Amino acid sequence: MKYRIEKDTMGEVQVPADKYWGAQTERSRNNFKIGASASMPQEIIEGFAYLKKAAAYANYDLGVLPIEKRDAIAAVCDEILAGKLDDQFPLVIWQTGSGTQSNMNVNEVIANRAQVLKGFEIGEGEQFIKANDDVNKSQSSNDTFPTGMHIAAYKMVVETTIPGVEKLRDTLLAKSSEFKDVVKIGRTHLMDATPLTLGQEISGYASQLNFGLKALKNTLAHLSEIALGGTAVGTGLNTPKGYDVKVAQYIAEFTNHPFVTAENKFEALAAHDAIVETHGALKQLAVSLNKIANDIRMLASGPRSGIGEIHIPENEPGSSIMPGKVNPTQCEALTMVCAQVIGNDMAIAVGGMQGHYELNVFKPVMAANFLQSARLLGDACVSFDEHCAQGIEPNYKRIKELVDNSLMLVTALNTKIGYYKAAEIAQTAHKNGTTLKDEAVRLGYVTPEDFDDWVKPEEMV
Amino acid sequence: MKYRIEKDTMGEVQVPADKYWGAQTERSRNNFKIGASASMPQEIIEGFAYLKKAAAYANYDLGVLPIEKRDAIAAVCDEILAGKLDDQFPLVIWQTGSGTQSNMNVNEVIANRAQVLKGFEIGEGEQFIKANDDVNKSQSSNDTFPTGMHIAAYKMVVETTIPGVEKLRDTLLAKSSEFKDVVKIGRTHLMDATPLTLGQEISGYASQLNFGLKALKNTLAHLSEIALGGTAVGTGLNTPKGYDVKVAQYIAEFTNHPFVTAENKFEALAAHDAIVETHGALKQLAVSLNKIANDIRMLASGPRSGIGEIHIPENEPGSSIMPGKVNPTQCEALTMVCAQVIGNDMAIAVGGMQGHYELNVFKPVMAANFLQSARLLGDACVSFDEHCAQGIEPNYKRIKELVDNSLMLVTALNTKIGYYKAAEIAQTAHKNGTTLKDEAVRLGYVTPEDFDDWVKPEEMV
Amino acid sequence: MKYRIEKDTMGEVQVPADKYWGAQTERSRNNFKIGASASMPQEIIEGFAYLKKAAAYANYDLGVLPIEKRDAIAAVCDEILAGKLDDQFPLVIWQTGSGTQSNMNVNEVIANRAQVLKGFEIGEGEQFIKANDDVNKSQSSNDTFPTGMHIAAYKMVVETTIPGVEKLRDTLLAKSSEFKDVVKIGRTHLMDATPLTLGQEISGYASQLNFGLKALKNTLAHLSEIALGGTAVGTGLNTPKGYDVKVAQYIAEFTNHPFVTAENKFEALAAHDAIVETHGALKQLAVSLNKIANDIRMLASGPRSGIGEIHIPENEPGSSIMPGKVNPTQCEALTMVCAQVIGNDMAIAVGGMQGHYELNVFKPVMAANFLQSARLLGDACVSFDEHCAQGIEPNYKRIKELVDNSLMLVTALNTKIGYYKAAEIAQTAHKNGTTLKDEAVRLGYVTPEDFDDWVKPEEMV
Amino acid sequence: MKYRIEKDTMGEVQVPADKYWGAQTERSRNNFKIGASASMPQEIIEGFAYLKKAAAYANYDLGVLPIEKRDAIAAVCDEILAGKLDDQFPLVIWQTGSGTQSNMNVNEVIANRAQVLKGFEIGEGEQFIKANDDVNKSQSSNDTFPTGMHIAAYKMVVETTIPGVEKLRDTLLAKSSEFKDVVKIGRTHLMDATPLTLGQEISGYASQLNFGLKALKNTLAHLSEIALGGTAVGTGLNTPKGYDVKVAQYIAEFTNHPFVTAENKFEALAAHDAIVETHGALKQLAVSLNKIANDIRMLASGPRSGIGEIHIPENEPGSSIMPGKVNPTQCEALTMVCAQVIGNDMAIAVGGMQGHYELNVFKPVMAANFLQSARLLGDACVSFDEHCAQGIEPNYKRIKELVDNSLMLVTALNTKIGYYKAAEIAQTAHKNGTTLKDEAVRLGYVTPEDFDDWVKPEEMV
Repeated sequence: MKYRIEKDTMGEVQVPADKYWGAQTERSRNNFKIGASASMPQEIIEGFAYLKKAAAYANYDLGVLPIEKRDAIAAVCDEILAGKLDDQFPLVIWQTGSGTQSNMNVNEVIANRAQVLKGFEIGEGEQFIKANDDVNKSQSSNDTFPTGMHIAAYKMVVETTIPGVEKLRDTLLAKSSEFKDVVKIGRTHLMDATPLTLGQEISGYASQLNFGLKALKNTLAHLSEIALGGTAVGTGLNTPKGYDVKVAQYIAEFTNHPFVTAENKFEALAAHDAIVETHGALKQLAVSLNKIANDIRMLASGPRSGIGEIHIPENEPGSSIMPGKVNPTQCEALTMVCAQVIGNDMAIAVGGMQGHYELNVFKPVMAANFLQSARLLGDACVSFDEHCAQGIEPNYKRIKELVDNSLMLVTALNTKIGYYKAAEIAQTAHKNGTTLKDEAVRLGYVTPEDFDDWVKPEEMV
Repeated sequence: MKYRIEKDTMGEVQVPADKYWGAQTERSRNNFKIGASASMPQEIIEGFAYLKKAAAYANYDLGVLPIEKRDAIAAVCDEILAGKLDDQFPLVIWQTGSGTQSNMNVNEVIANRAQVLKGFEIGEGEQFIKANDDVNKSQSSNDTFPTGMHIAAYKMVVETTIPGVEKLRDTLLAKSSEFKDVVKIGRTHLMDATPLTLGQEISGYASQLNFGLKALKNTLAHLSEIALGGTAVGTGLNTPKGYDVKVAQYIAEFTNHPFVTAENKFEALAAHDAIVETHGALKQLAVSLNKIANDIRMLASGPRSGIGEIHIPENEPGSSIMPGKVNPTQCEALTMVCAQVIGNDMAIAVGGMQGHYELNVFKPVMAANFLQSARLLGDACVSFDEHCAQGIEPNYKRIKELVDNSLMLVTALNTKIGYYKAAEIAQTAHKNGTTLKDEAVRLGYVTPEDFDDWVKPEEMV
Repeated sequence: MKYRIEKDTMGEVQVPADKYWGAQTERSRNNFKIGASASMPQEIIEGFAYLKKAAAYANYDLGVLPIEKRDAIAAVCDEILAGKLDDQFPLVIWQTGSGTQSNMNVNEVIANRAQVLKGFEIGEGEQFIKANDDVNKSQSSNDTFPTGMHIAAYKMVVETTIPGVEKLRDTLLAKSSEFKDVVKIGRTHLMDATPLTLGQEISGYASQLNFGLKALKNTLAHLSEIALGGTAVGTGLNTPKGYDVKVAQYIAEFTNHPFVTAENKFEALAAHDAIVETHGALKQLAVSLNKIANDIRMLASGPRSGIGEIHIPENEPGSSIMPGKVNPTQCEALTMVCAQVIGNDMAIAVGGMQGHYELNVFKPVMAANFLQSARLLGDACVSFDEHCAQGIEPNYKRIKELVDNSLMLVTALNTKIGYYKAAEIAQTAHKNGTTLKDEAVRLGYVTPEDFDDWVKPEEMV
Repeated sequence: MKYRIEKDTMGEVQVPADKYWGAQTERSRNNFKIGASASMPQEIIEGFAYLKKAAAYANYDLGVLPIEKRDAIAAVCDEILAGKLDDQFPLVIWQTGSGTQSNMNVNEVIANRAQVLKGFEIGEGEQFIKANDDVNKSQSSNDTFPTGMHIAAYKMVVETTIPGVEKLRDTLLAKSSEFKDVVKIGRTHLMDATPLTLGQEISGYASQLNFGLKALKNTLAHLSEIALGGTAVGTGLNTPKGYDVKVAQYIAEFTNHPFVTAENKFEALAAHDAIVETHGALKQLAVSLNKIANDIRMLASGPRSGIGEIHIPENEPGSSIMPGKVNPTQCEALTMVCAQVIGNDMAIAVGGMQGHYELNVFKPVMAANFLQSARLLGDACVSFDEHCAQGIEPNYKRIKELVDNSLMLVTALNTKIGYYKAAEIAQTAHKNGTTLKDEAVRLGYVTPEDFDDWVKPEEMV
């Protein structure tokens, strides 16, 4: 492989000749060989691209950066956002906990790429754009990384998680309405109980997701606050006056999301409670979705020896041994995602609780877990919606059979013949394996006509 | 011990003669010898007392319960709320997951106590108030337990957690203001950084708590929804028309908190996402408080070999071996509470995710963990506030010494002599163990007068 | 209430006149009003009683404590172990993280009680036994609390958890053997699969518990190491030579468990990885038990609309509304315990990871969570065993019906007529709602006689 | 893109013409668009390659597969193990929970690649090797995936985690020995305490890792048990006699690790407690490493305003603003890994607890989290060792200064002049900011000569 020499304050470093990154990126590559390379989420790099461009604009507006430098920086940021430089960000999550090295990776790539866009070879000539002095102007890793993290997190939640969950919620609402008259047996403690409609049952799922969406949206205000302008410790040292508000406005404009400058920059650097808070809502959704997916696979279980009250789509051949076997695979993918999100919540809590003084140095691990959860939940809801929920159909025959056989319908007789006679009917039917009507009539408590008049599952829902 | 005989549909049971509870409570006592007795939180019993009274009032209003029965039930509920019957609730958390047995415990105690209030011995005469038919009228365990759980949880959060956190937050705000001009060294990565004021540092803590309080309050709307009126599976079978709204109004009136009937009763029985949601905010507070308490004990560490920038109150003699030793014990208690709350969050998630069909049967464990967290956080904030935060004082001498010695003040020279000369000064001072000024002058980059003019920590914050 | 005056190095404190505790206990009572009083687990106090007695014996043997003091201390320790002083330990978990205050509580109670045993009133006369100088001799809170914690934890695991789990495991093994020929349908993905026997199914549960027990026992060596002899920071300052080994021998003798002195006292004070390690095995058992209890309640679900392959005991009347309803309440209690243990594992990890320098100050919260888990698992296994597992009986009729109807038996034809014809038979039967035999014969692939010869579920297990 | 047509029992599927995979892989690609593609860990694919080859060998030995097919299958498996087919496995973690689709992916790739190795184009001619009948012979997804998971997990632990941790442990042992005479101040509760040596302090870290390694190794027996031979539900249906033992022997031979057939195949399919168990030990190591890394960064904090007792290597330039700033970045990477592992432990617990009947369908998520933890811990320990631990050096000057100033040395006077006079000396020195010696002499309790004789930190360790 060919190399070129890059320098920083600690000396010279060999860097692959065809890469835009510089000395500090290369040092990080060598010093942190932990897990697969390039594990730092792409969304974080994109968040940096937005903020570097916004910083250049704000710096220009406030008179500390010339327009040509602004535009040169912005041009590379646009390339990053267009995905043209994806192979220039080789660093891992498991680096310095401030994400400084990824900040420098972005700074170095922008500086070197800008030089090339001006017509030079990489590393050739005096740098027109300097990584620290220009790209990083009015910034510190300590305020850029949390800003990039909030941009990435907010975008993922708003663009992927919420639409995915809403799509599934809408399907469940439609199914709830469609099946509003399908009377079925209820189950509590996994045991037969009084009836409800399939629509009512599904409405509970939709309601869970609505509450989850509401909880998630409640957290967005905190997440929309960005640290940029706090620089090293939150005081904003070395930023021009008005910079923090202006840079947030540019970020809002470029991303089309309502970002604002953080009210308290000390909190924004030293704690990442906004990440903890929003992920708490993601965890709540995982808890809800686990229940929903579990119920659906139990209701669809069978075909002969399970509950079998609903049909779900058959998407793949089943077992290589067992013909006709179809499995609730979307439920399985979704519940695995839920397990992951619940675990991620703990990783984030462990990171969030350990900030020290002016800086929390668990930023990359918090960001990575957050982004994984937010994406997986959104994707999995869409997958589950399209390949499972939309295809839910009642097994009318099975549903009717179970309702008709249910001993819990006896509850309707309580007000007619009293609790104890009703109990006697139910217990005798249970013991003899007969129907309630058989025993009600045989015991002489109810006439067949009265029984049919009084025991109507459709009036018990 | 003397016993009397109580009966239920499974036959006779011996019950301690002097206890108000009946057959079903006694069966539970015998069938669930798991952990210490009477572990079901008292607050849940109180929640039941509120709802049983409210149900009696709603049932009377809707014509299904005579006024004498209403008043008899209400009288015992008032005794429970006054703490007069505390020894009548012997059941454990680790019973049926619907909490049915605690519901029956309350029903049985109310029925038997009402009989005594009418002048009979316990168990004597025909029961005036029947546990199931009267006390439990228009109810099921499946809607009463979650209602009792929400009442208890809401009250604990609003009456204990929030005031406790606010009290600490107010102290931190006051300290932040008091120390707004105390310039001290900042620390990032635990390493010396540019200065900030002690007031700014503490303002970050107050900001964390403000965000946590806001997050917590955001969850209260969900928590204020109560399941009562859903009965067995959410359909409201066996309740009079209008009952759910009315009973919620009575609960709101009796508790003086804005409880409303749940919009979707199926969700309210089958899932306890409201508990998951609110506890998520408690966990966020735990994450915040862990950071705050940790910082404070590090800042106060010493007295000779630590950071030593602040003094905290000396509340107890220190070590039996080491005279003069005082420990940051309030920080320790608070961080232990945080560890507990973070663990409880997982127990609640595990319970919340495993509902089946129409009922989640992890109610008692979710309720118990929630109430523990909410109380501990509130209590620990008050304790920490009174015995630690209020007494925080700067160690001015130490703070000044550290600022004066700091190499990071060199940052102020960047704009005067350039980054590289500034770096040379700092590195030389670091190597020689000298001051920035010494080396700046010796290297000939800055005059003593300029140095004093340019390097002013108080202007860097 | 009447008070007497006690003193420590910070001055005078009013203490309830009838209590044996002294100034430092009282200070802790006042400074840590967090949660219910006296929450420090009783087992920790007992652990202290063992170690204080052992220390007195070792100190006597090594010539630093006279025999009368040794015997006076031992006499009170024996009273503590006999439960005679249970109301003398009012402190909470949420105190100093070293547990110093509970150590002092024990020291003070022993000293004052010893005075009374000599014939004085509490607080009267010159103390014969001094809390610090005599009871705490050759000790520090920093090595006593972890020792008490290990004694309590080890005893709970060996005396409660392991016997409880083994009892359940033995029942499952017996059931596995008893039902070894009961051929039933298997289920994978919750869907019908090839058959196995009920005995085989249950053997998997027993195997899980065997692995869990083995994992738990693997951890005991670490847990049997005790910190005593390390004193303040692990160096053993102020202990006589040979003390650490000797005191461990006495603890082993008094408890009848194989405690040994910790190989590395620095680890034993600064980290509580032994607690983390053993609780990891408790968590594994919780994971296993959750699966087992869940399966059993699903297999027992019904009576008409569930799986219904097994019967479990009917221990309590079911719903107040629904006669004949019996719920799998023991499964519910056990799975709630599992949720708690999984949460506790996280609380313990959060505490364990945050030790600082020479001392981990999350001792009480780690101990309390550990002891709760260990006791709950043991108790819940016994309860589940006696009230559920021992009573498991196959529902032979239901099991046979499901096996006979199973489409997955077609797998037996693969080797006779090929996979594709077998698949055609299964799919046709599924579509038509008929039996495999019907369709096999009708399609002309198999004669009735051959079908009966070839498709024998009992040969597929 | 060009496509070819592949078929399965549900019909035709378009597959990219240049890929070896078939219909079922392609269906999974389309049905599970959740997260980044190809997220199924490569190590799992390798585990499959080992087991497919072993199964072919065992099938041949037992007379159910001809030698040419055995060798054709083995040849492709060897290619997979050599990394030549890495781009042929596009599936995600978030698929069916049994991993069936990844099993089929491997089966299809082996079958189609074998055809090409025979000289055909992909998909051309009659398949010599059939995915289900030959590659999957005597197997089910239900026993192959857990086998692949155990192979991958065992290898990662033994080849990456353990060597990495041991490497760090060895360095810590060496440092412990090297610094065995460096007397320094101890700290408990973060406060100054009696002295110990730096070697003793570090010995505690090494001891933690030794316990962790022992705990990890204790779990390997369970992890070495493989499910292969259980097929669909654990009964071993459709396997030749002796197959399970033989196939395990081949896996042991090919991997050079001591794999054995699982004693109970029902447990091995329905539960993944071995994964839970081993990961529990990984979590314990994370807890330990978090403490160790935290201590080291606190001890190294400064350079002027921290503890500063040790130097750690300066690997990268520090802040772009603050010259001379060097951060404990390896500590940060390691503690982030610890946070991840602790979160992963919860994801694994959540998956492990939710098996249903004969199959746990959280296999891929459990495997992925396990492999990430095992690799990250191993890699991070190596990184931390090479770039931090090996370079730890005492700051002798600072260490001496802190010891000399310590008030806790007064403890040595207890036995000479009594606890109270010693306390008076310490408290006075603390108040006046003087030395112990100053005050001891001034108070007239000790002569300067005696003080120097009696107060020797080096004799207190």
